[in-house]
Amino acid sequence: MKKIEHSSEFVVRDYECDMQGVVNNSVYQNYLEHARHLLLKNIGLDFAGLTDKGIMLTVIRVELDYKSPLVSSDRFRIDTVMERVSPLRIVFIQNIYKIPGDMLVLKGKVFGTSLNRRRRPEMPVELELIFNDDQ
Amino acid sequence: MKKIEHSSEFVVRDYECDMQGVVNNSVYQNYLEHARHLLLKNIGLDFAGLTDKGIMLTVIRVELDYKSPLVSSDRFRIDTVMERVSPLRIVFIQNIYKIPGDMLVLKGKVFGTSLNRRRRPEMPVELELIFNDDQ
Amino acid sequence: MKKIEHSSEFVVRDYECDMQGVVNNSVYQNYLEHARHLLLKNIGLDFAGLTDKGIMLTVIRVELDYKSPLVSSDRFRIDTVMERVSPLRIVFIQNIYKIPGDMLVLKGKVFGTSLNRRRRPEMPVELELIFNDDQ
Amino acid sequence: MKKIEHSSEFVVRDYECDMQGVVNNSVYQNYLEHARHLLLKNIGLDFAGLTDKGIMLTVIRVELDYKSPLVSSDRFRIDTVMERVSPLRIVFIQNIYKIPGDMLVLKGKVFGTSLNRRRRPEMPVELELIFNDDQ
Repeated sequence: MKKIEHSSEFVVRDYECDMQGVVNNSVYQNYLEHARHLLLKNIGLDFAGLTDKGIMLTVIRVELDYKSPLVSSDRFRIDTVMERVSPLRIVFIQNIYKIPGDMLVLKGKVFGTSLNRRRRPEMPVELELIFNDDQ
Repeated sequence: MKKIEHSSEFVVRDYECDMQGVVNNSVYQNYLEHARHLLLKNIGLDFAGLTDKGIMLTVIRVELDYKSPLVSSDRFRIDTVMERVSPLRIVFIQNIYKIPGDMLVLKGKVFGTSLNRRRRPEMPVELELIFNDDQ
Repeated sequence: MKKIEHSSEFVVRDYECDMQGVVNNSVYQNYLEHARHLLLKNIGLDFAGLTDKGIMLTVIRVELDYKSPLVSSDRFRIDTVMERVSPLRIVFIQNIYKIPGDMLVLKGKVFGTSLNRRRRPEMPVELELIFNDDQ
Repeated sequence: MKKIEHSSEFVVRDYECDMQGVVNNSVYQNYLEHARHLLLKNIGLDFAGLTDKGIMLTVIRVELDYKSPLVSSDRFRIDTVMERVSPLRIVFIQNIYKIPGDMLVLKGKVFGTSLNRRRRPEMPVELELIFNDDQ
C-alpha cells in the first residue's frame, strides 16, 4: 500500500503548558491534527476546503503513548506517515520527537475516515486519486 | 481489584466546536481529564494540591474511540471507572454519552501513573490508602 | 435602552490553568463567550443556529480588566448585561465574581455586531425583535 | 522611554478556528501571549524561568480591536512594542497583520505588571536592567 510521509517542526508555546509545567495531554492532539492537515495540504488536499464541500475528514480512533513530556520553549518534530488500511479507513502513524537529540515524546496512531453530508462514510475522489496514483 | 466510579454531566460550549461544527477531537481529552479530576476530588484527592506537593499524576497512554459527535449545546454524561492494574499503574475507563437518550459518543481508556519530583514512578501514600481501603 | 441580563455559575477546570497555576488570560474570553451565548439562548437566540443561517455574531472590541486570578476548582459567577448602543452595535457588560464571597475577578466590556454572508453589518430580524420588544 | 520591539510570523492552525470558520476571539490572546514571551526571550528573559523563581508576569488589562478575521492556513505577523509606562506597569502594543498584504487583523494593548510570591507588585531586577539599560 502506498504510504505518504510528512515531517514538520514546531516550538512549544507557554499557553500550551498546564499547572504541572508540561504540555497538557490534550494539546498533543492539536499538534497531531495540525501535522496531519499539513501533510494533506502538501499533497493538494485542503481540510477547510473539503469541509466547505461537505467532506468531513473524521477521526474515529486514537492511540497515544506518552513517553516523555515537552516543556516551555522545547522544539519538536512530528513525523507522520499516512496509509490506507481499508477502502474507507486511513491510518496516520505519528511520532513526536524533541529536537535536538530526537528523544521520543509521543507515539501515536490515528485512524480516520471521511463522511459525506449525511454522515455516511464516503471516500472523496480527491483522496481516491491520491491513493490510486501509481507513482 | 477495587473499582471507584464517578459520573458527571456537562454541556458543550460553542468555543469547543471547530469549523466542522462539532466538538474538536482534542476537546474530549479536556472533558475526560476534568471528569478524572472530579472523581479524584470526590475521594479526597486534589490534583492541584498533589501537584504542589510534587506528586505528578501523569497520563501514559490513551485509547479513544470516537462513536458519534457532540455539537453545540449538547448535554452529555461522562461515566468514569478507576481501577489499579499494577503497583504503579491505574486505568480509567471513561465513556461519554449524549443525554437524554444515552447515545454513545466516545469510549475511552486512559492509563496513568504517578511520578515524583525526579520523574520516577512512585504511588503516593494518598492513592495507596484509597486502593488498600477494604471497604 | 432595553437591557437584558443573565447570570450563570461555573467551576474552574484544571486544564484551564497554566504554568503559573492560575486560569490563563485567554480562557476568560472563552468563559465570557459561553456566558453571552447562554444569555442569547435564554432569549431564544441560538448562536449555532444563527451561524447556520449565515448570521455571524461577531466581536469587534473587548476591554478586560483582570482583578484577581481564579485557580483550580474555584467556583465563579458571570453577570452579563446586554444592551444595544447603536443600530448596528451591541455591548455586553460582563463581570466575573469568585463565589462564595463575590470577590471581583474580571471586569469586561465586549462590543459586538452582526455580519451577513458578505461580511457586511446587518442586524438580524431575530435581534431587532428582541430590542424592539417593549416589555 | 525606552521601547523594545519584536516581530514574528505564524500560520493559523485549523483547530484554532471555530464553527464560523474563523480564528476564535480567544485564540488571539494566545497568539499575543506567545509573541510577548518571544519578545522577552529575545532580550534574555524566560517566562517559565521567571515563574519558577516566583516572579509572576501578569496581565492586568487588555484592549483588543478585531478588524478582520483570520481563517484556515492564513499567514500572519505580530508586531509587538514593549514600553514601561510607570514604575510597576508595562504596556505591550501588539498589532496583527495578515501576510502578504499587511491587512490589519487586530490592534491590541496589553498592560502588565510583575507580582512576587505574595502577589504584591514588584518589578524584578531582570526587568529593571532591561529598562535602565541606556543603549
